[in-house]
Amino acid sequence: MFEAAELGRKISREEFDALAPSLRTELLDLQQQLREADFPVVIVFAGVDGAGKNESVNLINEWLDPRWIVTRAYGKPSDEEAERPTFWRFWRDLPPKGKIGLFLSSWYHDPLIARVHGHASAIEFDESLRPIIRFEKTLADEGALILKFWMHLSRPAQKKRLKSLEKEPLTAWQVTETDWKHYELYDKFVATAEQMIMQTSKGHASWRIVEGADSRYRSAVVLQTIKEAIAGHLATRAAASKIAAELKQATRGTDEQAVVPVALPPQPTILSSLDMSQDIDSAVYAQALQEQRARLAHLYRAAIEAKLSTVLVFEGWDAAGKGGAIRRLTNALNARDYQVIPIAAPTEEERAQHYLWRFWRHIARAGRVTVFDRSWYGRVLVERVEGFCSEEAWRRAYNEINDFEEQLTRHGIVLCKFWLHITSEEQLARFKARGEIDYKKWKLTDEDWRNRSKWGEYEQAVNEMVERSSTRTAPWTLVEANSKAYARVKVMNTVANALEHALERLEKHKK
Amino acid sequence: MFEAAELGRKISREEFDALAPSLRTELLDLQQQLREADFPVVIVFAGVDGAGKNESVNLINEWLDPRWIVTRAYGKPSDEEAERPTFWRFWRDLPPKGKIGLFLSSWYHDPLIARVHGHASAIEFDESLRPIIRFEKTLADEGALILKFWMHLSRPAQKKRLKSLEKEPLTAWQVTETDWKHYELYDKFVATAEQMIMQTSKGHASWRIVEGADSRYRSAVVLQTIKEAIAGHLATRAAASKIAAELKQATRGTDEQAVVPVALPPQPTILSSLDMSQDIDSAVYAQALQEQRARLAHLYRAAIEAKLSTVLVFEGWDAAGKGGAIRRLTNALNARDYQVIPIAAPTEEERAQHYLWRFWRHIARAGRVTVFDRSWYGRVLVERVEGFCSEEAWRRAYNEINDFEEQLTRHGIVLCKFWLHITSEEQLARFKARGEIDYKKWKLTDEDWRNRSKWGEYEQAVNEMVERSSTRTAPWTLVEANSKAYARVKVMNTVANALEHALERLEKHKK
Repeated sequence: MFEAAELGRKISREEFDALAPSLRTELLDLQQQLREADFPVVIVFAGVDGAGKNESVNLINEWLDPRWIVTRAYGKPSDEEAERPTFWRFWRDLPPKGKIGLFLSSWYHDPLIARVHGHASAIEFDESLRPIIRFEKTLADEGALILKFWMHLSRPAQKKRLKSLEKEPLTAWQVTETDWKHYELYDKFVATAEQMIMQTSKGHASWRIVEGADSRYRSAVVLQTIKEAIAGHLATRAAASKIAAELKQATRGTDEQAVVPVALPPQPTILSSLDMSQDIDSAVYAQALQEQRARLAHLYRAAIEAKLSTVLVFEGWDAAGKGGAIRRLTNALNARDYQVIPIAAPTEEERAQHYLWRFWRHIARAGRVTVFDRSWYGRVLVERVEGFCSEEAWRRAYNEINDFEEQLTRHGIVLCKFWLHITSEEQLARFKARGEIDYKKWKLTDEDWRNRSKWGEYEQAVNEMVERSSTRTAPWTLVEANSKAYARVKVMNTVANALEHALERLEKHKK
Repeated sequence: MFEAAELGRKISREEFDALAPSLRTELLDLQQQLREADFPVVIVFAGVDGAGKNESVNLINEWLDPRWIVTRAYGKPSDEEAERPTFWRFWRDLPPKGKIGLFLSSWYHDPLIARVHGHASAIEFDESLRPIIRFEKTLADEGALILKFWMHLSRPAQKKRLKSLEKEPLTAWQVTETDWKHYELYDKFVATAEQMIMQTSKGHASWRIVEGADSRYRSAVVLQTIKEAIAGHLATRAAASKIAAELKQATRGTDEQAVVPVALPPQPTILSSLDMSQDIDSAVYAQALQEQRARLAHLYRAAIEAKLSTVLVFEGWDAAGKGGAIRRLTNALNARDYQVIPIAAPTEEERAQHYLWRFWRHIARAGRVTVFDRSWYGRVLVERVEGFCSEEAWRRAYNEINDFEEQLTRHGIVLCKFWLHITSEEQLARFKARGEIDYKKWKLTDEDWRNRSKWGEYEQAVNEMVERSSTRTAPWTLVEANSKAYARVKVMNTVANALEHALERLEKHKK
């Protein structure tokens, strides 16, 4: 695979100086256009030591406007990073729309090194590449332009370079022991890299192999590639949105004659099959609440000991009692140990990112509880029903969400997802009640009434959501919430059970 | 001081239920108004264990709209937190304008506990309160409403409470060993708290002592106090801005007859006394650059070992060569170890915070280098000259900045501040040159010309800035930058010297 990168290709200073100015100008123009664009550029640099990874990053920062570039390189994870899923720190550092992110020793570093040093088996190595593929896919699906450069250097070329650097007293510092260690492992390193490149080269995120021996040649190739990729992506995105607009235009007229689906006799759905009559009387409730509260308090002290984190997702109809259920639960915890994250409209910084970014940023440290009052499921609920995102986008979201949640559970996080369900009649009654109690009026907005008018569409979306996203590791708990008492106890009981199991599993592991 | 909080004040259920609804409604109305307001509300809860700190926080979250409340409580700092100045984590968690922040075991916790357990002497205790006073002052000066509640419980009342909780199997979990340890230390604790409250009660951030024995009385007092404070602050802020507007109106007419200052013969200033002819020839430059680069590389490897962080501030005239100087410097570092933070217009999230918040958030972890391309000095430069903030605000900023920088240097961070100075003629020449080179055109904006037209005002602002903010621990380095070569070498040399000294100091400390 690397033969083509060992041909000793060169560019003379004259040749380089001849093409540099125009190349640089074009790149700067593109960067200006990019600022207005609706996608970020993610550029990964990996490769053989001394093949010019750092130099390329520095050159890009020198040629372009650094205010629109983020450079990131990674060492050993901090404890805050280690306590969260592996990709948390990469999500945290993603460039917003309009900016370019340069990544050194990125998400490819650890899997590659682990394999080269024999810490990972061939199977484990393949395993470790899968999340990478999904990560890049989800970014690309949202429009990100992803470029990956493998900077190559032949075995002799690398040796030659290290030697010559070492000779020079002023450059010797650049050669570290690691460089020589890696050199010893050259063959293993390159062989592993080859597999990695083959498995992770996708149409939306392909590797470019660059011969790194000659700095001018290398720079020209990298910058030229970036230039063409950005120009191309800008053009495709523009064309795509134009076509989309025309399609919308064209189909608008036909809305009236929309095809009427064959009317099947009504079928039972996940929601319709719930027994909404369930209830408990107030005496039992008071007792059960106290018991569950004490139980949760015990379990959480153990969980904090065991550094076991919890993520709780609350979705449900307006007025289904999410807030009340959350408060009964958090009353069993210390304010220090939990965060309730109410999901409102995204901020400017959040709008400039992948829609999952704003949820990643809230994932708490080990032992903590993160409660989402509404969540990433907004994508397949409100955004779907209100048409805030394209059908293609919300359909894709099921997989993105499953993948996101798998990363949480894989990391050992206890994840519970609740849909608080009430009947349309119950909702109406509660809306009316709210209207009458002064200090509850604020809870009732026109939006609630608008949403209510779309009950049917939401019902369909919810059924599909549960169907698609109730996985073995992250199942949905449907809560019959016409009775607030019943709902609250069921929620607390479910969380407590999940915690109990997780703690038992941990115990077993220890033995 | 606490006698008044040991009178056994109570409210009956009937009395509470009578006042609750209207109180709650008023609070909700105020919270709605607050959302539009230009200030955050910071509420600190401290006090005797079992006096209802957590309960009050839960109640506020229950009565108000939790989407506009942030609750924070603090345990042992994470390593990411420990590697930064103490207040970093509090800055990170500050509520934005329009929101209410509830803080448990806040910035008061560690100083108080350290003193109670005898880990801090009386002097050290006083010392540890000073940064708190300055922290609250700087928030209040920017408009924040600060409320501090000390929840009190008499010795017998606390004992009674702990005992009764322990009896009840369902509530026993609430009583931890720490509770009893604190109880043993009750007298010491309360005596220390008294000193703390006296020293940290200010007009803009005063303590309210609340008798915590009766939960209804306690809740009523806390909520009532919050209500009045928010209502009052909203009123004052509104009145103040009205008066300010009228003043502006009134003075507008008089601009023409502005008083002409007595024309003194021109005096030497810090800038005018620089020898701008300094230069070095290209051969010397190339050599010096290489040497400084190797020197910095060595020093930084030692600094990373020693977990010694660096913060570099670059200010200077447009086209003074900040970017070039920064790049020469960062070329000696690994991309992993530094971040260049170009300060552009603040984001929405940043505009909703104290102006120093956006700089706090970028302070890097131990051993890292953070380079600010423009900085917090924008407050006393561009914001002053362009009138983006009031005179009162930028005059106040000198102290706020000195205090901010003192926190950095106290934490052991190496701080270097550079003003890259060029003459007006040199700037003109560089502007023209930029206009001619395609790939440099982008660097030249209309704004540059606008700023240039205000050279005199900026010169005055710079002179005053250096005068006011060049402290012993954080001095300014004025760089004669008409010669880029000279400027770059001087910058690198200054940073290297600063590092060398810091490392030597650390060595001495070890011995």
